[in-house]
Amino acid sequence: MQFREADAFHEECGIFGVTGNRDAASLTYLGLYALQHRGQESAGIVTWDGETAFQHRAMGLANHVFDEDILRSLAGSVGIGHVRYSTTGQSQLMNAQPSLVRFRGGWLAAAHNGNLVDSANLRTRLESAGSIFRTTTDTETILHLVARAYARRPAGEEADKAELLAEALRGVQGAYSIVFMMDGCLVAARDPRGYRPLCFGRVKNGGWAVASESCGLDIVDARVEREVEPGEIVIFEPEGPRSHKMDAAGAPESFCIFEYIYFLRPDSVVRGVSVDTVRRELGRSLAREKPADADIVISVPDSSNAAAAGYAEESGIPLEFGLIRNHYIGRTFIHPKQSLRDYKVRIKYNPVADTLAGKRVVVVDDSIVRGTTSQKLMDMIRRAGAAEVHLRIASPPIRFPCFYGSDTPTRGELVASSKEVAEIAEFIGVDSLGYLSLDGLLASVPGSSESYCVACFDGSYPHESVIKEAATSAAGRAEG
Amino acid sequence: MQFREADAFHEECGIFGVTGNRDAASLTYLGLYALQHRGQESAGIVTWDGETAFQHRAMGLANHVFDEDILRSLAGSVGIGHVRYSTTGQSQLMNAQPSLVRFRGGWLAAAHNGNLVDSANLRTRLESAGSIFRTTTDTETILHLVARAYARRPAGEEADKAELLAEALRGVQGAYSIVFMMDGCLVAARDPRGYRPLCFGRVKNGGWAVASESCGLDIVDARVEREVEPGEIVIFEPEGPRSHKMDAAGAPESFCIFEYIYFLRPDSVVRGVSVDTVRRELGRSLAREKPADADIVISVPDSSNAAAAGYAEESGIPLEFGLIRNHYIGRTFIHPKQSLRDYKVRIKYNPVADTLAGKRVVVVDDSIVRGTTSQKLMDMIRRAGAAEVHLRIASPPIRFPCFYGSDTPTRGELVASSKEVAEIAEFIGVDSLGYLSLDGLLASVPGSSESYCVACFDGSYPHESVIKEAATSAAGRAEG
Amino acid sequence: MQFREADAFHEECGIFGVTGNRDAASLTYLGLYALQHRGQESAGIVTWDGETAFQHRAMGLANHVFDEDILRSLAGSVGIGHVRYSTTGQSQLMNAQPSLVRFRGGWLAAAHNGNLVDSANLRTRLESAGSIFRTTTDTETILHLVARAYARRPAGEEADKAELLAEALRGVQGAYSIVFMMDGCLVAARDPRGYRPLCFGRVKNGGWAVASESCGLDIVDARVEREVEPGEIVIFEPEGPRSHKMDAAGAPESFCIFEYIYFLRPDSVVRGVSVDTVRRELGRSLAREKPADADIVISVPDSSNAAAAGYAEESGIPLEFGLIRNHYIGRTFIHPKQSLRDYKVRIKYNPVADTLAGKRVVVVDDSIVRGTTSQKLMDMIRRAGAAEVHLRIASPPIRFPCFYGSDTPTRGELVASSKEVAEIAEFIGVDSLGYLSLDGLLASVPGSSESYCVACFDGSYPHESVIKEAATSAAGRAEG
Amino acid sequence: MQFREADAFHEECGIFGVTGNRDAASLTYLGLYALQHRGQESAGIVTWDGETAFQHRAMGLANHVFDEDILRSLAGSVGIGHVRYSTTGQSQLMNAQPSLVRFRGGWLAAAHNGNLVDSANLRTRLESAGSIFRTTTDTETILHLVARAYARRPAGEEADKAELLAEALRGVQGAYSIVFMMDGCLVAARDPRGYRPLCFGRVKNGGWAVASESCGLDIVDARVEREVEPGEIVIFEPEGPRSHKMDAAGAPESFCIFEYIYFLRPDSVVRGVSVDTVRRELGRSLAREKPADADIVISVPDSSNAAAAGYAEESGIPLEFGLIRNHYIGRTFIHPKQSLRDYKVRIKYNPVADTLAGKRVVVVDDSIVRGTTSQKLMDMIRRAGAAEVHLRIASPPIRFPCFYGSDTPTRGELVASSKEVAEIAEFIGVDSLGYLSLDGLLASVPGSSESYCVACFDGSYPHESVIKEAATSAAGRAEG
Repeated sequence: MQFREADAFHEECGIFGVTGNRDAASLTYLGLYALQHRGQESAGIVTWDGETAFQHRAMGLANHVFDEDILRSLAGSVGIGHVRYSTTGQSQLMNAQPSLVRFRGGWLAAAHNGNLVDSANLRTRLESAGSIFRTTTDTETILHLVARAYARRPAGEEADKAELLAEALRGVQGAYSIVFMMDGCLVAARDPRGYRPLCFGRVKNGGWAVASESCGLDIVDARVEREVEPGEIVIFEPEGPRSHKMDAAGAPESFCIFEYIYFLRPDSVVRGVSVDTVRRELGRSLAREKPADADIVISVPDSSNAAAAGYAEESGIPLEFGLIRNHYIGRTFIHPKQSLRDYKVRIKYNPVADTLAGKRVVVVDDSIVRGTTSQKLMDMIRRAGAAEVHLRIASPPIRFPCFYGSDTPTRGELVASSKEVAEIAEFIGVDSLGYLSLDGLLASVPGSSESYCVACFDGSYPHESVIKEAATSAAGRAEG
Repeated sequence: MQFREADAFHEECGIFGVTGNRDAASLTYLGLYALQHRGQESAGIVTWDGETAFQHRAMGLANHVFDEDILRSLAGSVGIGHVRYSTTGQSQLMNAQPSLVRFRGGWLAAAHNGNLVDSANLRTRLESAGSIFRTTTDTETILHLVARAYARRPAGEEADKAELLAEALRGVQGAYSIVFMMDGCLVAARDPRGYRPLCFGRVKNGGWAVASESCGLDIVDARVEREVEPGEIVIFEPEGPRSHKMDAAGAPESFCIFEYIYFLRPDSVVRGVSVDTVRRELGRSLAREKPADADIVISVPDSSNAAAAGYAEESGIPLEFGLIRNHYIGRTFIHPKQSLRDYKVRIKYNPVADTLAGKRVVVVDDSIVRGTTSQKLMDMIRRAGAAEVHLRIASPPIRFPCFYGSDTPTRGELVASSKEVAEIAEFIGVDSLGYLSLDGLLASVPGSSESYCVACFDGSYPHESVIKEAATSAAGRAEG
Repeated sequence: MQFREADAFHEECGIFGVTGNRDAASLTYLGLYALQHRGQESAGIVTWDGETAFQHRAMGLANHVFDEDILRSLAGSVGIGHVRYSTTGQSQLMNAQPSLVRFRGGWLAAAHNGNLVDSANLRTRLESAGSIFRTTTDTETILHLVARAYARRPAGEEADKAELLAEALRGVQGAYSIVFMMDGCLVAARDPRGYRPLCFGRVKNGGWAVASESCGLDIVDARVEREVEPGEIVIFEPEGPRSHKMDAAGAPESFCIFEYIYFLRPDSVVRGVSVDTVRRELGRSLAREKPADADIVISVPDSSNAAAAGYAEESGIPLEFGLIRNHYIGRTFIHPKQSLRDYKVRIKYNPVADTLAGKRVVVVDDSIVRGTTSQKLMDMIRRAGAAEVHLRIASPPIRFPCFYGSDTPTRGELVASSKEVAEIAEFIGVDSLGYLSLDGLLASVPGSSESYCVACFDGSYPHESVIKEAATSAAGRAEG
Repeated sequence: MQFREADAFHEECGIFGVTGNRDAASLTYLGLYALQHRGQESAGIVTWDGETAFQHRAMGLANHVFDEDILRSLAGSVGIGHVRYSTTGQSQLMNAQPSLVRFRGGWLAAAHNGNLVDSANLRTRLESAGSIFRTTTDTETILHLVARAYARRPAGEEADKAELLAEALRGVQGAYSIVFMMDGCLVAARDPRGYRPLCFGRVKNGGWAVASESCGLDIVDARVEREVEPGEIVIFEPEGPRSHKMDAAGAPESFCIFEYIYFLRPDSVVRGVSVDTVRRELGRSLAREKPADADIVISVPDSSNAAAAGYAEESGIPLEFGLIRNHYIGRTFIHPKQSLRDYKVRIKYNPVADTLAGKRVVVVDDSIVRGTTSQKLMDMIRRAGAAEVHLRIASPPIRFPCFYGSDTPTRGELVASSKEVAEIAEFIGVDSLGYLSLDGLLASVPGSSESYCVACFDGSYPHESVIKEAATSAAGRAEG
């Protein structure tokens, strides 16, 4: 997921925070590096040196956005960072995060992963009360709510940060995993249903770190303590992390199952299991549910490597590297005057003809969104000499858009929203097509089936009424 | 005033607005070009195409900040623009103007020239009411006040823009000449004492334009209609400009007399007289008050050209071009390892030895701030062969800092705050030094003496009580 | 090999050429994209529109160096391109290729992969004859030789391009795979020993293309015709490719065996076999030669994926994905104030603890240069919980530097130049270490053993006398 | 002359050199700053630290091209620099100077002001001898000639640099003022007719400096020693400057009289007289030759300030500042959709209506090229209220293009090549027009009439036969 692909789901953000470490900016930068797969359009860091706040945000990958001088200018031992997937355009720099403002309580910054389902209503209410908005992000909405919660406190009364945030977030509906830097204090919060991942741990050489995924803690040599629980606010105080439960805590959990399927990095550990292990199990289940009479199994690198290995293992069909991925690619902007067959997919993948020629090939992929990329890819494999192409998908058909922070096309563009599996197979041009069943999927992931959001597969949105309204407006598009 | 000089006053902003012309962005760009002398650190334009707002702001001169593609992207027939003098640093981009936000009434943007003397109090009050601040500009404070004024209106009631702005600006103290773009409508406002200039006129090929100075109207081929009056709000409606008086209108006028001395471009017309004409008269008065027995008169180009010509005319001593100014200069950053005499002043000026050699020279300058640049310049003139150097200043000694939008050093750094004229002459190293008297100054400018702010000369600040408080805090530094 | 690693060999260049296709610039760009692994420091394209030549070169990856406007400006139906690995620094832009000059015959451009072993002598001879040099590249030396060969022709006589080039290249010793654009004609040439790869083919939608590797032809939908033979010059004339043999053709072939081990992309086909297939065989041979009593096999992704798969297949030990590679990384510039264990290797790889914990692990890697990266990587694997670490290398110990176009450290820095295998194992910190033998390597690659350059393993340089001289001077460092 | 104007002559280059001062790069930078008026399109510096050479060149003004880090990287105590006027375009960066190459004698760099009239022939001869060219500059031609002269010396014989350069430049025809850095030694050379200025002097804090104009020496606090004489080569050796005469020395001098009229900075001293003084005399002569019955005299700032002052002085008509020039302007790129009267000339000048209204105005300008800018400017003055407009030009009508280093339009575009004075007056739209006569011009400049090139006025080119040939080819366009 190195560049914006028309034909994939997009995780919208990765967040990171650290406190109590005088390398705060460097650690945050490393954390963003490790979380880069969650957003490649902009990156930003805010730090606090005990007196003032420093900020740098720009469009691009973390390693283009930051350099040595910039990191040095981000002074202090507290920092939060953000990588974002968003639409391009210079004007969009305003929307890059973390957002940093001055409020009654001093400096306030936040970095957010998720999507509020009622954000249009919240903004209208805030505007009616005299708020001004500079961005179109949910983060700004949340900052307003925090500032207004603070303003309701009697002057001179010391505000408890956790209670303040709990009050601000009360009534906010949707998905949010957030790190705040509030008057120099690092705080992490996760919505009561826990759609998006968030974990924290102790940094070996000092302090505490929070990250969307455990791979963000690994890179800074932090030992994972645990996940932030749904509906929990964790305040990182000098004496260590302190937990505060939101009122709404106790709502049913709705962890995004697509995180396991595609978004998470394979080396991250969520719910106690490494993502690689879960995906390998998805591949095994898929092999059992949808076997194929074939000579070799290949993956669509790198996202389906583990599932393909599981499929091979379970089926006994040997795993080969039939597609080579070019990792140098960025945006594709060329517009050849003459037709150039498949160049858009060729830019990313090239078949290994030796390996494929004359073979009956099982291709394992993680998911199908529009189906157009699969179509080109399978055609390329076939033209490289494959005798038969059997496509196996390590997740169920995607039939519904997401309103919780994944960037998805409209329902009409999802190939499975209007086509049966046989029709999709024909559309893509494969000899056979098999999806993992929803039951098979739920049986392969850790924890109870009820603790997952599977709305993109079955349309049962946790916030059905709010979504219904939003879906009819333009606000359904994910942000943040 | 092409680059930040340590030893000069700095005007902080130039503003421009246009409506009813489909070249809004291009005209705004040209207007900023002509107003560039009022601020060289950042430039920005906001436009509105009837539906949405477009924005581009960056550090640098207008002709570096904008190019053809950017101007094309700033669609619409309404635009406002801003050039700003500020401290450097990427983080300061946030402070560049115009500021653009969404509020209850749609899109709201503003560009401001001046300085609020009570801004710290206003911010504290707004923060206590739950406002968040992204910048340190007065402009953001004013946008909050406008949004909150709007929020106080009953829902569904059509707000009169002029009344709304009048309500928002009630109680705001200090200097502000502002252009707003409010839900697509261009509005110009000037504080009740009229510290900073602002005028408007009809654009020959369609619509209306507002500018800090008439030279900003000239360049877009607009005919000057008149100045925005102190305490006046002008709303540019489809049927033409409509005037609204603020409650506080009627307060004594306090136009910044330093605008005539230094800030304004010589071709601008203010209070019905061209600045060149006023400055020439300053030179004549100076010649009468402080004659010199000399062979030639030279100016410190370009700011004292007119005063020098007036001095020459009145005294009968011939005017010569004894200093050549290099207009290509930008920031001086070099740090030679070896001593390099005067190179900082040489970068900007070079003496014409032929002209100066053996002559008794009257040097006419507009003002002296710290005196350090004058010292180097006079030394250079003397080393170029001048037999005698008589420095004549076309304004009185500056003894007090400004709180109304000029960027001045602290009182202690003003050479005239602690030294008598004879001591200054010795410090600078001239054979004689003469300043124009305050009475002589006031007699040379159009209108009554009472209608000017001369606080930098006599310390009588129009908002004495507010200033006193601010002067003891850090807030005394001008912004905007 | 996405960024300059201190501890790996570096291929120095990728070259591409196309003629007879009006998308010449776009196709060249795509070709460079596919060849990006051969050089990431600079990229350039030269085209010719029948009258004049166009050029764009810059530091950075192809997709940063070029954009739509630039490609559009590179007009014409003939193009050559180059990606380069080099030291950084703006001044190095001069050394970016292709080089474009005017000579007696019109426009002349060249892009080169390889290294001349006698370049210092050639430059001295040319300088003595009055030549001036703007760069330190072999390419410029070759352009001078071509121009001087042309100048020796009688005026008015039509020069045969192939004979001219053969004459120019006579006496040039070392490795060179080159594409020329000579007066609008595309020409490809390969040194008589054929150190570096070069192949060509017919573009499906028109014209002919040349590329360092077949993956560069695949991406432009070109059918591989064949490799340019050692000592062959191929002129792409309107009627098709015409072959010309250099006098020295017939010299023993010396194809760089390291190309198979590491440089070539796995999907490229060289000598009729895909690189992936060769590497898998290296893994199988390694498993036979250096078995290990272990639970899992893992690769160091992506370069040793195929060898690891071969090792697993032959040994029967299951292949797992124990290391996850972050593909977003660029240069690492951070300098944390506090010690941050392993962060340099963590930036690139993260272990999958689930997979490694408690296991006896065979790690398959392609080669060891200095050994320092292996040391950190093995330590990280062990700390992720591996019970035993058995390192297996799919090539022999590297004991000698390369003078034929790979960027290698000095001999003293090669860990195997001074240490026995057991000492290296101890240095790196593994339970066992096994290298593939040179015989095993030669038995696994296509063609006769004599047709390979294996100097980095056994020190038997094909141009021994020239090398000996160069090795004592600074000229031994590879360029181009 | 701050930006490329369609309607003016353009000086093409400024050059500077320094040796024996450890601030070589900083001093060169300052020198280029002062010479910026001679070329604004690119700037470059080459230095030498006793061992190796350093180089930085880029498009833009010197203060954009260089910063502190870059100057620091240009190590050593010898430096040469260049500012250039040229056509835009990234590819033109290749043509930026100084040019730096390696040749038999080590490092060789040169910066050139002027134009060779036989450059096409020289290039053809060099190409026939096997030379390759990377640029279209005369400088590269000269570097080739130097390298080939060196190559003709017997090996091992120490070459005298002056004799070598004299040999190289023998037969080169046209205008060249050059600074070389040859194996670390600074050398200055001027063609036998001395078309372009060049002077040198002792730097107060150490070493020697060479500059196109004395203002380039003033800024580095160097005392002017003298001008480099026509046909002289000055080698700056450790013991001081040593002079060498070329064979052709003794040819009639042909100093470009247009340097006095327009190119030189007014504070520069040439032939012992300051340019300001010469221009003032031009104005006086003009007043005598072409009087006017008028109320005020105004200049077109800044180039005609001195001539206007001279005209006012001689005529007794008062000098006023009737036009204000905006010094912030750069390239004008805007393309308004609607007609915007005069905006192109307004961007640069604005009339002071107060001063002009109702007056009979004498406008003094330095020269007229195409006449189109004069037309717009006079129209603007008239519309500002001038009752009568009398244009006086402080030089004769320009009827012929220049082939010696000024960038001029073709003959057909010169308004005076086809129109009589009365017709030009009508074309421009003035009440009267008067040019200074050629005799009047020659009587006002220092030295004998025969020592000037006045070819642009009378068509008598010093190299008539060569020019005739060149004029029929495309090579007539000035370079360098």
